[in-house]
Amino acid sequence: MSTQIKLAVIPGDGIGPEVIAEAVKVLEVATSAADVTFDLSWFSLGAARFLETGDVLTDEDLASIAAHDAILLGAVGGVPGDPRLANANIERGLLLKLRFSLDHYVNLRPSVLFPGVPSPLAAPGNVDFVVVREGTEGPYVGNGGAIRQGTAHEVANEVSVNTAFGVERVVRHAFAVAQARPGRHLTLVHKTNVLVFAGGLWQRIVTAVATEFPEVSVDYLHVDAATIFLVTNPSRFDVIVTDNLFGDILTDLAAAISGGIGLAASGNINPDGRFPSMFEPVHGSAPDIAGKQLADPTAAILSVALLLSHLGLTDAAARVTAAVTADIAARRGDGAATAPRSTTDVGNAIVTRLTDK
Amino acid sequence: MSTQIKLAVIPGDGIGPEVIAEAVKVLEVATSAADVTFDLSWFSLGAARFLETGDVLTDEDLASIAAHDAILLGAVGGVPGDPRLANANIERGLLLKLRFSLDHYVNLRPSVLFPGVPSPLAAPGNVDFVVVREGTEGPYVGNGGAIRQGTAHEVANEVSVNTAFGVERVVRHAFAVAQARPGRHLTLVHKTNVLVFAGGLWQRIVTAVATEFPEVSVDYLHVDAATIFLVTNPSRFDVIVTDNLFGDILTDLAAAISGGIGLAASGNINPDGRFPSMFEPVHGSAPDIAGKQLADPTAAILSVALLLSHLGLTDAAARVTAAVTADIAARRGDGAATAPRSTTDVGNAIVTRLTDK
Ligand SMILES: CC(C)[C@H](C(=O)O)[C@@H](O)C(=O)O
Ligand SMILES: CC(C)[C@H](C(=O)O)[C@@H](O)C(=O)O
Repeated sequence: MSTQIKLAVIPGDGIGPEVIAEAVKVLEVATSAADVTFDLSWFSLGAARFLETGDVLTDEDLASIAAHDAILLGAVGGVPGDPRLANANIERGLLLKLRFSLDHYVNLRPSVLFPGVPSPLAAPGNVDFVVVREGTEGPYVGNGGAIRQGTAHEVANEVSVNTAFGVERVVRHAFAVAQARPGRHLTLVHKTNVLVFAGGLWQRIVTAVATEFPEVSVDYLHVDAATIFLVTNPSRFDVIVTDNLFGDILTDLAAAISGGIGLAASGNINPDGRFPSMFEPVHGSAPDIAGKQLADPTAAILSVALLLSHLGLTDAAARVTAAVTADIAARRGDGAATAPRSTTDVGNAIVTRLTDK
Repeated sequence: MSTQIKLAVIPGDGIGPEVIAEAVKVLEVATSAADVTFDLSWFSLGAARFLETGDVLTDEDLASIAAHDAILLGAVGGVPGDPRLANANIERGLLLKLRFSLDHYVNLRPSVLFPGVPSPLAAPGNVDFVVVREGTEGPYVGNGGAIRQGTAHEVANEVSVNTAFGVERVVRHAFAVAQARPGRHLTLVHKTNVLVFAGGLWQRIVTAVATEFPEVSVDYLHVDAATIFLVTNPSRFDVIVTDNLFGDILTDLAAAISGGIGLAASGNINPDGRFPSMFEPVHGSAPDIAGKQLADPTAAILSVALLLSHLGLTDAAARVTAAVTADIAARRGDGAATAPRSTTDVGNAIVTRLTDK
């Protein structure tokens, strides 16, 4: 008896379709021997769909996606500055709407400097940490507003909303992630000295939940100081737990120091399992290089590894990660100049490593 | 006839008094030949003062400081976690209160990688940019609040307030800064795709003010992408204009890549001249190394250069910067191991370079 997994695939815009094509190939090869079959439904969403139909994400789209077991997303977003997209805000209307509607309160973003990958840091040391970014609260809630817009007396506000309920569940998840890692260390990042109400809530909850995880050591950094440590001593980090906006900023920086967003995978997770979780590369749609087979599909493929691991297919997940690690190591090899590979070449190379095994 | 300049000096806590002692020595030597005299009043403010008297900053303190022509501040803040300071919040009650009360709407933070200074980046290139951080609005306004505090139903909000008045004046200042630099390039950093109201206001005002500065080229980066460029290609930046919180984060990262916060100076400026501007190193009070002559006074001394330049004493400012540059270059010299110098040693070395001249 084989388990059927319903996977919603959203290739999206720009390089999204190209990297997703490789990710799906890898997914299928990696699970061919497993006792599961993936049933894929493809959703055409993003800037291209908006330009065609005027819709960003309809209630029907959302209901249909929500009926799946998991989601794989490429990248969404049109050409920056395209006047036809001026009022669309694909990010809020599609990406953030999915994260919020599907209660993806854990945004999991591992940062690993794979052997052979050059870092912009002179002495990066051992970079291997995970950011657990809150995904459904903070300054991302969309509770902003403006009065007297367009006049000299305009006032534009943004509200960061933080609840004990929302902070506690993500903090508890982060402690569990830390507990399962050899380092068993958790760093809360916030700005408690300025954002005293939100910061106070986060600080109190971390202190309270810490008593349930006596083996996890805890420390605290202001977000500004955290950026310093990310470039001077990234190996000090094991698990970082932080709010939605700080997590957004820190994970791009973290991706940069560990070889670039071409390698950074992420999971938007609903740990309750009430809604499907969504896996996506951290990079955007990069319309400037779209359709040219120039994009690196590695981040999308590593997102497949996160997806498999989330579904409990830990063996398949480990094999994908191992194949990617070997592929990355071979890229630099003995330093010989290697011809640049196309998006498909990289996918095929990883598939070959998986099938050879 | 010599001009009398009334300078309020706030040495503060931790390493503050040590670095300010050197900064004041340099100030006096650098201006000894100029047609000005500095009349110093010393203010004992910070954690130590709070522990003694229970006051952080009284109305009398504020009125007295406001009656000066400029302010030089070391660093404020007690030992982290000191239970006696739990309810004090020296940062909000002193540092931010000064910035807000004295309408320091321009927080000027230059980042220069001086010759001879090691960067954590493998290939930093030419790092020489200025961040113009808004200082009186954004998430720093202190308009947060919480309900049901300490319960499972707590909701803690923080409000970012942005006004056309406040954004326009700092954006115009940033354009003027860019116009006066050879690069003539301004980058707006925000998060317009998520913080649509605040981001929209910033974006529209930059576009409008740009028409007054046709020689300045303008671009835009999301804050997350800006952190990537700061570590992969910092020489792409000339002038950055951004909000209070993004500016806080970016300037610590900027300091890290250009040799550390031991070298980073800043000016909290009221360009209108209605209130005294305040100059301070970006670093904190570092209580762990206080009183040991281990702190590098360079950031405080470079803050004196910013102070002199703000007061129109451009010649003296240039000489301080030149003396610091020469001192820094000599630190690494020909690579020979040099014994670590005390705080006073560094101050004296810079004074010697100024007097030899
Ligand atoms: C596209 C944007 C809305 C998104 C975010 O800010 O979360 C992206 O930067 C990310 O990190 O996934
Ligand atoms: C101490 C703190 C309130 C302050 C800030 O956040 O502005 C500091 O980090 C700075 O950058 O000057």
